[in-house]
Amino acid sequence: MSFSPLVDELIESLRCLPGVGHKSAQRMALQLLERDRDGAMRLSNALSDSIVGVGRCAKCQNLTEVEVCKLCSDERRNNGQLCVVETPSDLLALELSHTFGGRYFVLMGHLSPIDGIGPEEIGLDKLMRLVSEASIKEVILATNSTIEGDATAFYIADLLEEQDVLVTRIAHGIPVGGQLGYVDGGTLGHALTGRKPIDG
Amino acid sequence: MSFSPLVDELIESLRCLPGVGHKSAQRMALQLLERDRDGAMRLSNALSDSIVGVGRCAKCQNLTEVEVCKLCSDERRNNGQLCVVETPSDLLALELSHTFGGRYFVLMGHLSPIDGIGPEEIGLDKLMRLVSEASIKEVILATNSTIEGDATAFYIADLLEEQDVLVTRIAHGIPVGGQLGYVDGGTLGHALTGRKPIDG
Ligand SMILES: [Zn+2]
Ligand SMILES: [Zn+2]
Repeated sequence: MSFSPLVDELIESLRCLPGVGHKSAQRMALQLLERDRDGAMRLSNALSDSIVGVGRCAKCQNLTEVEVCKLCSDERRNNGQLCVVETPSDLLALELSHTFGGRYFVLMGHLSPIDGIGPEEIGLDKLMRLVSEASIKEVILATNSTIEGDATAFYIADLLEEQDVLVTRIAHGIPVGGQLGYVDGGTLGHALTGRKPIDG
Repeated sequence: MSFSPLVDELIESLRCLPGVGHKSAQRMALQLLERDRDGAMRLSNALSDSIVGVGRCAKCQNLTEVEVCKLCSDERRNNGQLCVVETPSDLLALELSHTFGGRYFVLMGHLSPIDGIGPEEIGLDKLMRLVSEASIKEVILATNSTIEGDATAFYIADLLEEQDVLVTRIAHGIPVGGQLGYVDGGTLGHALTGRKPIDG
Protein backbone atom coordinates (compact mmCIF):
# COMPACT_ATOMS: atom_id res chain seq x y z
CA MET A 1 0.00 0.00 0.00
CA SER A 2 1.25 3.49 -0.74
CA PHE A 3 0.58 6.71 1.09
CA SER A 4 0.58 10.08 -0.63
CA PRO A 5 3.51 10.90 -2.96
CA LEU A 6 5.31 13.10 -0.38
CA VAL A 7 5.06 10.47 2.36
CA ASP A 8 6.14 7.74 -0.07
CA GLU A 9 9.17 9.82 -1.07
CA LEU A 10 10.06 10.37 2.59
CA ILE A 11 9.85 6.62 3.25
CA GLU A 12 11.95 5.84 0.19
CA SER A 13 14.61 8.43 1.02
CA LEU A 14 14.95 7.21 4.63
CA ARG A 15 16.25 3.97 3.17
CA CYS A 16 19.59 5.64 2.40
CA LEU A 17 20.31 5.18 6.11
CA PRO A 18 22.38 2.05 6.83
CA GLY A 19 20.35 -0.77 8.36
CA VAL A 20 16.98 0.80 7.53
CA GLY A 21 14.64 -1.40 5.46
CA HIS A 22 11.24 -0.57 4.07
CA LYS A 23 9.32 -1.38 7.25
CA SER A 24 11.59 0.67 9.53
CA ALA A 25 11.53 3.55 7.05
CA GLN A 26 7.74 3.49 7.10
CA ARG A 27 7.66 3.55 10.88
CA MET A 28 10.20 6.39 10.98
CA ALA A 29 8.32 8.51 8.43
CA LEU A 30 4.97 8.12 10.16
CA GLN A 31 6.45 8.75 13.58
CA LEU A 32 8.12 11.97 12.39
CA LEU A 33 5.01 13.28 10.63
CA GLU A 34 2.64 12.30 13.42
CA ARG A 35 4.64 13.25 16.44
CA ASP A 36 7.96 14.93 15.86
CA ARG A 37 7.94 17.52 13.11
CA ASP A 38 10.38 19.68 15.05
CA GLY A 39 12.83 16.79 15.13
CA ALA A 40 12.29 16.17 11.43
CA MET A 41 12.98 19.82 10.60
CA ARG A 42 16.10 19.76 12.74
CA LEU A 43 17.30 16.64 10.93
CA SER A 44 16.55 18.17 7.53
CA ASN A 45 18.62 21.24 8.40
CA ALA A 46 21.46 19.23 9.94
CA LEU A 47 21.67 17.12 6.78
CA SER A 48 21.79 20.05 4.37
CA ASP A 49 24.12 22.09 6.60
CA SER A 50 26.60 19.27 6.93
CA ILE A 51 26.49 18.36 3.24
CA VAL A 52 27.39 21.95 2.41
CA GLY A 53 29.73 22.56 5.31
CA VAL A 54 31.60 19.36 6.02
CA GLY A 55 34.64 18.67 3.89
CA ARG A 56 37.99 17.06 4.57
CA CYS A 57 40.82 18.17 6.83
CA ALA A 58 43.71 19.59 4.82
CA LYS A 59 46.17 17.55 6.85
CA CYS A 60 44.58 14.19 7.69
CA GLN A 61 41.56 14.03 5.33
CA ASN A 62 39.16 13.43 8.23
CA LEU A 63 35.65 14.91 8.01
CA THR A 64 35.58 18.49 9.30
CA GLU A 65 34.10 21.88 8.48
CA VAL A 66 37.29 23.78 9.20
CA GLU A 67 40.60 23.85 7.31
CA VAL A 68 42.48 21.73 9.85
CA CYS A 69 40.52 19.37 12.10
CA LYS A 70 40.37 19.30 15.88
CA LEU A 71 42.61 16.25 16.17
CA CYS A 72 45.29 17.71 13.90
CA SER A 73 45.35 21.00 15.78
CA ASP A 74 45.39 19.41 19.24
CA GLU A 75 48.88 20.21 20.56
CA ARG A 76 48.75 17.62 23.32
CA ARG A 77 48.89 14.74 20.84
CA ASN A 78 52.06 12.86 20.06
CA ASN A 79 53.60 14.03 16.77
CA GLY A 80 55.90 11.00 16.56
CA GLN A 81 53.19 8.50 15.65
CA LEU A 82 50.84 8.53 12.68
CA CYS A 83 48.01 6.02 12.46
CA VAL A 84 46.58 5.36 8.98
CA VAL A 85 42.92 4.28 8.90
CA GLU A 86 40.39 3.76 6.13
CA THR A 87 37.45 5.80 7.44
CA PRO A 88 36.38 8.33 10.09
CA SER A 89 34.42 5.50 11.76
CA ASP A 90 37.68 3.57 12.18
CA LEU A 91 39.34 6.66 13.64
CA LEU A 92 36.42 7.03 16.03
CA ALA A 93 36.68 3.38 17.12
CA LEU A 94 40.38 3.84 17.89
CA GLU A 95 39.77 7.07 19.77
CA LEU A 96 37.11 5.37 21.90
CA SER A 97 39.57 2.60 22.80
CA HIS A 98 41.76 5.29 24.47
CA THR A 99 44.93 3.46 23.43
CA PHE A 100 46.42 5.87 20.92
CA GLY A 101 47.50 9.46 21.43
CA GLY A 102 49.24 10.25 18.15
CA ARG A 103 48.13 11.66 14.81
CA TYR A 104 45.85 10.14 12.19
CA PHE A 105 45.60 9.96 8.45
CA VAL A 106 42.24 8.96 6.99
CA LEU A 107 42.40 7.31 3.56
CA MET A 108 38.63 7.61 3.02
CA GLY A 109 38.68 4.17 1.46
CA HIS A 110 41.22 1.65 0.28
CA LEU A 111 42.98 0.82 -2.96
CA SER A 112 40.54 -0.80 -5.38
CA PRO A 113 41.84 -0.74 -8.95
CA ILE A 114 38.62 -2.35 -10.24
CA ASP A 115 36.62 0.65 -8.99
CA GLY A 116 39.20 3.13 -10.25
CA ILE A 117 40.45 3.90 -6.75
CA GLY A 118 44.22 4.29 -7.00
CA PRO A 119 46.90 5.81 -4.73
CA GLU A 120 45.88 9.37 -5.58
CA GLU A 121 42.19 8.82 -4.79
CA ILE A 122 43.02 7.79 -1.22
CA GLY A 123 45.52 10.65 -0.82
CA LEU A 124 48.77 8.69 -0.67
CA ASP A 125 50.71 11.62 -2.21
CA LYS A 126 49.46 13.75 0.66
CA LEU A 127 50.37 11.03 3.15
CA MET A 128 53.93 10.82 1.78
CA ARG A 129 54.37 14.59 2.01
CA LEU A 130 53.08 14.54 5.57
CA VAL A 131 55.50 11.79 6.60
CA SER A 132 58.51 13.46 4.98
CA GLU A 133 57.76 16.94 6.39
CA ALA A 134 56.62 16.13 9.91
CA SER A 135 58.49 14.68 12.85
CA ILE A 136 56.91 11.25 12.45
CA LYS A 137 58.93 8.29 13.73
CA GLU A 138 56.36 5.55 13.27
CA VAL A 139 53.54 4.97 10.81
CA ILE A 140 50.94 2.49 12.12
CA LEU A 141 48.91 0.91 9.33
CA ALA A 142 45.45 0.31 10.78
CA THR A 143 43.53 -0.47 7.61
CA ASN A 144 40.91 -3.20 7.89
CA SER A 145 42.00 -6.82 7.86
CA THR A 146 40.25 -7.46 4.57
CA ILE A 147 41.94 -8.32 1.26
CA GLU A 148 41.76 -4.68 0.15
CA GLY A 149 42.81 -3.33 3.54
CA ASP A 150 45.83 -5.65 3.65
CA ALA A 151 46.79 -4.80 0.07
CA THR A 152 46.55 -1.08 0.85
CA ALA A 153 48.72 -1.52 3.97
CA PHE A 154 51.42 -3.36 2.02
CA TYR A 155 51.32 -0.80 -0.78
CA ILE A 156 51.86 2.03 1.73
CA ALA A 157 54.62 0.06 3.51
CA ASP A 158 56.39 -0.24 0.13
CA LEU A 159 56.09 3.49 -0.51
CA LEU A 160 57.52 4.27 2.92
CA GLU A 161 60.49 1.93 2.64
CA GLU A 162 62.90 4.69 1.67
CA GLN A 163 61.76 7.04 4.41
CA ASP A 164 63.40 7.01 7.81
CA VAL A 165 60.33 5.78 9.68
CA LEU A 166 59.27 2.58 11.39
CA VAL A 167 56.28 1.09 9.61
CA THR A 168 54.01 -1.17 11.68
CA ARG A 169 50.78 -3.02 11.05
CA ILE A 170 48.05 -3.17 13.69
CA ALA A 171 48.03 -6.70 15.18
CA HIS A 172 45.46 -9.24 14.10
CA GLY A 173 43.56 -9.35 17.31
CA ILE A 174 40.76 -8.03 15.14
CA PRO A 175 38.58 -10.75 13.59
CA VAL A 176 39.73 -11.57 10.06
CA GLY A 177 37.34 -10.06 7.51
CA GLY A 178 35.99 -7.75 10.18
CA GLN A 179 35.70 -4.00 9.98
CA LEU A 180 37.44 -1.83 12.56
CA GLY A 181 34.39 0.29 13.24
CA TYR A 182 32.52 -2.68 14.71
CA VAL A 183 35.22 -3.98 17.08
CA ASP A 184 35.08 -3.28 20.83
CA GLY A 185 37.64 -1.01 22.47
CA GLY A 186 39.39 -3.83 24.38
CA THR A 187 40.12 -5.84 21.27
CA LEU A 188 41.27 -2.71 19.47
CA GLY A 189 43.60 -1.90 22.35
CA HIS A 190 45.14 -5.38 22.18
CA ALA A 191 45.53 -5.16 18.43
CA LEU A 192 47.27 -1.83 18.73
CA THR A 193 49.58 -2.87 21.56
CA GLY A 194 50.56 -6.06 19.75
CA ARG A 195 51.52 -4.31 16.50
CA LYS A 196 54.57 -5.60 14.64
CA PRO A 197 57.04 -4.06 12.17
CA ILE A 198 56.36 -4.95 8.54
CA ASP A 199 59.34 -6.73 6.98
CA GLY A 200 60.00 -4.71 3.85
CA MET B 1 34.78 11.68 21.51
CA SER B 2 33.18 14.44 19.48
CA PHE B 3 33.61 15.28 15.82
CA SER B 4 33.19 18.78 14.47
CA PRO B 5 30.09 20.77 15.53
CA LEU B 6 28.22 20.13 12.27
CA VAL B 7 28.84 16.38 12.38
CA ASP B 8 27.92 16.28 16.08
CA GLU B 9 24.67 18.10 15.33
CA LEU B 10 23.88 15.66 12.52
CA ILE B 11 24.48 12.71 14.85
CA GLU B 12 22.33 14.27 17.56
CA SER B 13 19.48 15.10 15.21
CA LEU B 14 19.42 11.57 13.72
CA ARG B 15 18.37 10.39 17.16
CA CYS B 16 14.86 11.74 16.59
CA LEU B 17 14.35 8.60 14.49
CA PRO B 18 12.62 5.82 16.43
CA GLY B 19 14.99 3.01 17.44
CA VAL B 20 18.14 4.99 16.67
CA GLY B 21 20.58 5.32 19.58
CA HIS B 22 23.84 7.23 19.73
CA LYS B 23 25.95 4.51 18.14
CA SER B 24 23.60 3.94 15.20
CA ALA B 25 23.26 7.68 14.70
CA GLN B 26 27.05 7.98 14.54
CA ARG B 27 27.27 5.19 11.99
CA MET B 28 24.49 6.76 9.90
CA ALA B 29 26.03 10.24 9.95
CA LEU B 30 29.49 9.04 8.92
CA GLN B 31 28.09 6.73 6.24
CA LEU B 32 26.06 9.58 4.72
CA LEU B 33 28.95 12.07 4.77
CA GLU B 34 31.54 9.58 3.54
CA ARG B 35 29.59 7.75 0.91
CA ASP B 36 26.09 8.97 0.20
CA ARG B 37 25.74 12.75 0.10
CA ASP B 38 23.18 12.46 -2.69
CA GLY B 39 21.04 10.26 -0.48
CA ALA B 40 21.48 12.67 2.42
CA MET B 41 20.40 15.63 0.27
CA ARG B 42 17.40 13.67 -0.97
CA LEU B 43 16.43 12.86 2.62
CA SER B 44 16.88 16.47 3.71
CA ASN B 45 14.55 17.64 0.94
CA ALA B 46 12.00 14.89 1.54
CA LEU B 47 11.86 15.84 5.22
CA SER B 48 11.36 19.56 4.65
CA ASP B 49 8.93 19.01 1.74
CA SER B 50 6.76 16.65 3.74
CA ILE B 51 6.79 18.82 6.86
CA VAL B 52 5.51 21.72 4.77
CA GLY B 53 3.25 19.73 2.48
CA VAL B 54 1.74 16.90 4.49
CA GLY B 55 -1.31 17.72 6.55
CA ARG B 56 -4.45 15.82 7.42
CA CYS B 57 -7.26 14.61 5.21
CA ALA B 58 -10.37 16.76 5.64
CA LYS B 59 -12.53 13.65 5.88
CA CYS B 60 -10.59 10.95 7.75
CA GLN B 61 -7.67 12.89 9.33
CA ASN B 62 -5.10 10.57 7.72
CA LEU B 63 -1.76 12.07 6.64
CA THR B 64 -1.99 13.50 3.11
CA GLU B 65 -0.88 16.49 1.08
CA VAL B 66 -4.22 16.92 -0.68
CA GLU B 67 -7.59 18.03 0.67
CA VAL B 68 -9.13 14.56 0.62
CA CYS B 69 -6.86 11.52 0.78
CA LYS B 70 -6.53 8.68 -1.70
CA LEU B 71 -8.46 6.23 0.48
CA CYS B 72 -11.36 8.62 1.02
CA SER B 73 -11.63 9.42 -2.68
CA ASP B 74 -11.37 5.79 -3.82
CA GLU B 75 -14.86 5.01 -5.15
CA ARG B 76 -14.36 1.26 -5.09
CA ARG B 77 -14.33 1.17 -1.30
CA ASN B 78 -17.37 0.20 0.76
CA ASN B 79 -19.15 3.27 2.16
CA GLY B 80 -21.16 1.20 4.63
CA GLN B 81 -18.26 0.46 6.98
CA LEU B 82 -16.05 2.89 8.85
CA CYS B 83 -13.02 1.67 10.75
CA VAL B 84 -11.69 3.95 13.51
CA VAL B 85 -7.93 3.65 14.21
CA GLU B 86 -5.49 5.58 16.34
CA THR B 87 -2.71 6.25 13.84
CA PRO B 88 -1.77 6.07 10.14
CA SER B 89 0.53 3.13 11.05
CA ASP B 90 -2.52 1.24 12.33
CA LEU B 91 -4.39 2.05 9.14
CA LEU B 92 -1.43 0.78 7.14
CA ALA B 93 -1.28 -2.46 9.11
CA LEU B 94 -4.98 -3.09 8.43
CA GLU B 95 -4.60 -2.29 4.74
CA LEU B 96 -1.69 -4.72 4.47
CA SER B 97 -3.85 -7.47 6.03
CA HIS B 98 -6.21 -7.12 3.02
CA THR B 99 -9.23 -7.86 5.19
CA PHE B 100 -11.06 -4.56 5.14
CA GLY B 101 -12.47 -2.65 2.17
CA GLY B 102 -14.40 0.14 3.85
CA ARG B 103 -13.57 3.66 5.00
CA TYR B 104 -11.28 4.81 7.79
CA PHE B 105 -11.18 7.49 10.41
CA VAL B 106 -7.79 8.22 12.00
CA LEU B 107 -7.95 9.65 15.52
CA MET B 108 -4.26 10.62 15.51
CA GLY B 109 -4.05 9.48 19.11
CA HIS B 110 -6.39 8.42 21.87
CA LEU B 111 -8.20 10.11 24.73
CA SER B 112 -5.74 11.07 27.45
CA PRO B 113 -7.19 13.63 29.86
CA ILE B 114 -3.90 13.84 31.77
CA ASP B 115 -2.13 15.10 28.63
CA GLY B 116 -5.00 17.43 27.76
CA ILE B 117 -6.16 15.22 24.89
CA GLY B 118 -9.94 15.29 24.93
CA PRO B 119 -12.65 14.37 22.39
CA GLU B 120 -12.02 17.45 20.28
CA GLU B 121 -8.25 16.86 20.00
CA ILE B 122 -8.83 13.46 18.39
CA GLY B 123 -11.56 14.81 16.12
CA LEU B 124 -14.61 13.09 17.60
CA ASP B 125 -16.87 15.99 16.54
CA LYS B 126 -15.71 15.40 12.98
CA LEU B 127 -16.26 11.65 13.37
CA MET B 128 -19.82 12.20 14.60
CA ARG B 129 -20.61 14.50 11.65
CA LEU B 130 -19.15 11.95 9.25
CA VAL B 131 -21.25 9.12 10.69
CA SER B 132 -24.48 11.16 10.67
CA GLU B 133 -24.01 12.49 7.12
CA ALA B 134 -22.64 9.46 5.31
CA SER B 135 -24.23 6.14 4.49
CA ILE B 136 -22.36 4.31 7.23
CA LYS B 137 -24.03 1.20 8.64
CA GLU B 138 -21.25 -0.04 10.89
CA VAL B 139 -18.48 1.67 12.86
CA ILE B 140 -15.61 -0.71 13.71
CA LEU B 141 -13.56 0.52 16.67
CA ALA B 142 -10.00 -0.64 16.00
CA THR B 143 -8.16 1.36 18.61
CA ASN B 144 -5.28 -0.40 20.34
CA SER B 145 -6.03 -2.90 23.10
CA THR B 146 -4.37 -0.71 25.70
CA ILE B 147 -6.11 0.99 28.61
CA GLU B 148 -6.32 4.27 26.67
CA GLY B 149 -7.35 2.55 23.44
CA ASP B 150 -10.12 0.64 25.21
CA ALA B 151 -11.31 3.76 27.01
CA THR B 152 -11.39 5.67 23.73
CA ALA B 153 -13.38 2.88 22.06
CA PHE B 154 -15.97 2.83 24.84
CA TYR B 155 -16.23 6.61 24.80
CA ILE B 156 -16.93 6.57 21.04
CA ALA B 157 -19.42 3.70 21.44
CA ASP B 158 -21.29 5.83 23.98
CA LEU B 159 -21.37 8.82 21.65
CA LEU B 160 -22.71 6.66 18.81
CA GLU B 161 -25.45 5.02 20.87
CA GLU B 162 -28.16 7.34 19.57
CA GLN B 163 -27.12 7.01 15.95
CA ASP B 164 -28.59 4.33 13.75
CA VAL B 165 -25.35 2.39 13.27
CA LEU B 166 -23.94 -0.90 14.46
CA VAL B 167 -20.89 -0.28 16.64
CA THR B 168 -18.34 -3.10 16.84
CA ARG B 169 -14.98 -3.57 18.51
CA ILE B 170 -12.16 -5.35 16.73
CA ALA B 171 -11.75 -8.81 18.34
CA HIS B 172 -9.03 -9.44 20.84
CA GLY B 173 -6.99 -11.74 18.69
CA ILE B 174 -4.40 -9.01 19.05
CA PRO B 175 -2.07 -9.48 22.00
CA VAL B 176 -3.28 -7.52 25.02
CA GLY B 177 -1.15 -4.44 25.53
CA GLY B 178 0.10 -4.74 21.98
CA GLN B 179 0.03 -2.03 19.36
CA LEU B 180 -1.77 -2.65 16.09
CA GLY B 181 1.10 -1.46 13.94
CA TYR B 182 3.30 -4.33 15.08
CA VAL B 183 0.84 -7.21 14.57
CA ASP B 184 1.06 -9.49 11.52
CA GLY B 185 -1.63 -9.44 8.85
CA GLY B 186 -3.02 -12.88 9.72
CA THR B 187 -3.70 -11.99 13.34
CA LEU B 188 -5.22 -8.69 12.28
CA GLY B 189 -7.48 -10.50 9.85
CA HIS B 190 -8.71 -12.83 12.60
CA ALA B 191 -9.25 -9.94 14.96
CA LEU B 192 -11.30 -8.11 12.35
CA THR B 193 -13.37 -11.13 11.35
CA GLY B 194 -14.13 -12.01 14.97
CA ARG B 195 -15.35 -8.52 15.87
CA LYS B 196 -18.38 -8.30 18.21
CA PRO B 197 -21.08 -5.67 18.82
CA ILE B 198 -20.46 -3.50 21.86
CA ASP B 199 -23.30 -3.83 24.39
CA GLY B 200 -24.37 -0.25 25.03
ZN1 LIG C 1 43.00 16.55 10.50
ZN1 LIG D 1 -9.09 10.58 4.06
